[in-house]
Amino acid sequence: MKIGVIGYSTTEFGELWDRSPRDLSREVFLNSLKGARLEAAKIEALYVGNMLAGILGNQANLASFYAEELGIAVPSVRVEAACASGSVALHNAVQSVKAGLYKTVMVLGIEKMTDHTQDEVIAGLMAAGSDEERASGITFAGLYALIAQTYMKKYGISEEDLAEIPVKNHFHGSLNPKAQFRNLITVEQVMKSARISDPLKLLDCSPISDGASAVIISSDSKLLAKSKGVTIVASQLGTDSVGLCGREDLTTLKSAVSASKKAYAEASIKAHEVAVAEVHDCFSIAEAIALEDLSFSKKGMGVLDVKNGKVTLGSSGVIINPSGGLKACGHPVGATGIKQVIEIAMQLEGVAGKRQVKNATIGLTHNVGGSGAVAGVHILRI
Amino acid sequence: MKIGVIGYSTTEFGELWDRSPRDLSREVFLNSLKGARLEAAKIEALYVGNMLAGILGNQANLASFYAEELGIAVPSVRVEAACASGSVALHNAVQSVKAGLYKTVMVLGIEKMTDHTQDEVIAGLMAAGSDEERASGITFAGLYALIAQTYMKKYGISEEDLAEIPVKNHFHGSLNPKAQFRNLITVEQVMKSARISDPLKLLDCSPISDGASAVIISSDSKLLAKSKGVTIVASQLGTDSVGLCGREDLTTLKSAVSASKKAYAEASIKAHEVAVAEVHDCFSIAEAIALEDLSFSKKGMGVLDVKNGKVTLGSSGVIINPSGGLKACGHPVGATGIKQVIEIAMQLEGVAGKRQVKNATIGLTHNVGGSGAVAGVHILRI
Repeated sequence: MKIGVIGYSTTEFGELWDRSPRDLSREVFLNSLKGARLEAAKIEALYVGNMLAGILGNQANLASFYAEELGIAVPSVRVEAACASGSVALHNAVQSVKAGLYKTVMVLGIEKMTDHTQDEVIAGLMAAGSDEERASGITFAGLYALIAQTYMKKYGISEEDLAEIPVKNHFHGSLNPKAQFRNLITVEQVMKSARISDPLKLLDCSPISDGASAVIISSDSKLLAKSKGVTIVASQLGTDSVGLCGREDLTTLKSAVSASKKAYAEASIKAHEVAVAEVHDCFSIAEAIALEDLSFSKKGMGVLDVKNGKVTLGSSGVIINPSGGLKACGHPVGATGIKQVIEIAMQLEGVAGKRQVKNATIGLTHNVGGSGAVAGVHILRI
Repeated sequence: MKIGVIGYSTTEFGELWDRSPRDLSREVFLNSLKGARLEAAKIEALYVGNMLAGILGNQANLASFYAEELGIAVPSVRVEAACASGSVALHNAVQSVKAGLYKTVMVLGIEKMTDHTQDEVIAGLMAAGSDEERASGITFAGLYALIAQTYMKKYGISEEDLAEIPVKNHFHGSLNPKAQFRNLITVEQVMKSARISDPLKLLDCSPISDGASAVIISSDSKLLAKSKGVTIVASQLGTDSVGLCGREDLTTLKSAVSASKKAYAEASIKAHEVAVAEVHDCFSIAEAIALEDLSFSKKGMGVLDVKNGKVTLGSSGVIINPSGGLKACGHPVGATGIKQVIEIAMQLEGVAGKRQVKNATIGLTHNVGGSGAVAGVHILRI
């Protein structure tokens, strides 16, 4: 069965203090319908990816909440998988279409984080950690710092090397009008930025963001015929232990390795055929590990491949995070997995403007929850 | 495609202060595998239905959490739909099997509520309400009291009539060794019990409970051949407004009407063919409305059909809530939708002991979230 991405829309990501979740959801709902030249009545079901509304805002039952807000009284499902909530929601939406239950489904990823204090948000995000991690007082920056320390020692990587990752992502973000940060940064600036958790500095960390993203997927042959032709050819999930203490090796995520292997098999492609990918760079080190887990880089070469410009716009290799990634585009956690899919759809359709990857026909998204407990991988083609 | 319920297990429901969520999940994991004579390695994915772990316990990413706890590193999805989390999780699991992604999947419904103060739990449950409802200070007992007032005035139903519903459910619960309450009650006792929100009294309200329930579903022909033959022939969701103020009529839930209509069509059966049903009697009035929404009773006859013994064990009509329902069996919210499916599977297999419905070949479950914002309906056959 062919499942197309027939419409999409994302809000600008950032500190959107003057906008409510309802408002953000309406923007992407209306714009994605408009882009697809579709009436709202064609949407047969709604899948919602969100992590924090219950914890921070005491709002559960979000699927019905947004179905009501958007004026579509259709079957609705809320999926929560920490920072992978968006891709896991899409995954379930894809299965519902493949199962033949629905033809046309909307998937909404949404998160409103900046209305809360930093302490509240950090505590909320730690809901994705393990008991042991929370009890220790560690934060996600601390967890990824442990991963970074292990990786850098193992492969002889310097902090300056690692800093090349956010520098590249800010360059990409500078070309994305929806990105939270559009300023160029240098390795020197990363090195001088506040030390958050050794060796990670402020500019190694993705921000706290607000945003909403929506895609409309369909198996309806008439709607596919009038779409631009992007299809989802693989949708897979992987799982690892919640806490780092349960892992044999901190320099890889089993969740991402298993999900991507299954996704490549489902799409009948090899990693080297992917022209563009959006990966989960919640911290600089996460992008390096993603490159290796997805088989884009050899083991230990993730950071160096970025440093050597192999994945930067203009390179002939796979282009990584043309949107600016979580670091520069922003990371409203429930929306991220959907924004990634939208970025890839735009790249494949050739409508990505200044950040357009040339001749891209296959793209991939990699969305991680917690410190790797869950990963969702999607592959798109045109 | 045939999808069978090849294994199941539920813990006792109740105030399980000496047991952790991990412990409860292990019990139903191991017992459902044992019942299905299945190795854990056969489980290809895990779906988890839970409402409150994030809000009450600051634990998100529950799918990975339980996959790790149960020692199965398989793709895992957590679904939240307030008190319908269990059935909506099962619905998504069914779609993943129908889509051909997996053959054998476990669905875990779990909730631990009694470790928290009453105020915390009531505030947590109100996360399923609307902004207006929360701001007004109303609770779910208050919302269902408004529904009851409207219904009773419209159809001339007395409080004594309504009290027949929990009396019947306690009778059924007295025959269920897993039920939280196994004591018989009388109409007089209901009438004398503490007034919670007019006209609902303490014995009209389902309790706060702990519990876990798991089912294993499969499309694997070998596993189906060695199973007892119960299959899921319909799985549908419906949606209504989150708040009561968005409804034209308080005496029906659009979510349940639309889900059940689609479910009857999917199963190619009529309502009168259902021999046994587990419905969402979070408050007495909810069971009466469920009977009408599911087309078991005529409009306005839900309460009277219960009063007249038409749905009590031993009657020739559809038997409602042989488990004791939410009122007597208990209501650990994420587990309820799965426990309902287990009760129906046991009834169809003829292993329900003292509460066995005779010659039941078709059963139905009806699981509601919030005051009806979401409903999940499943139909099972043997």
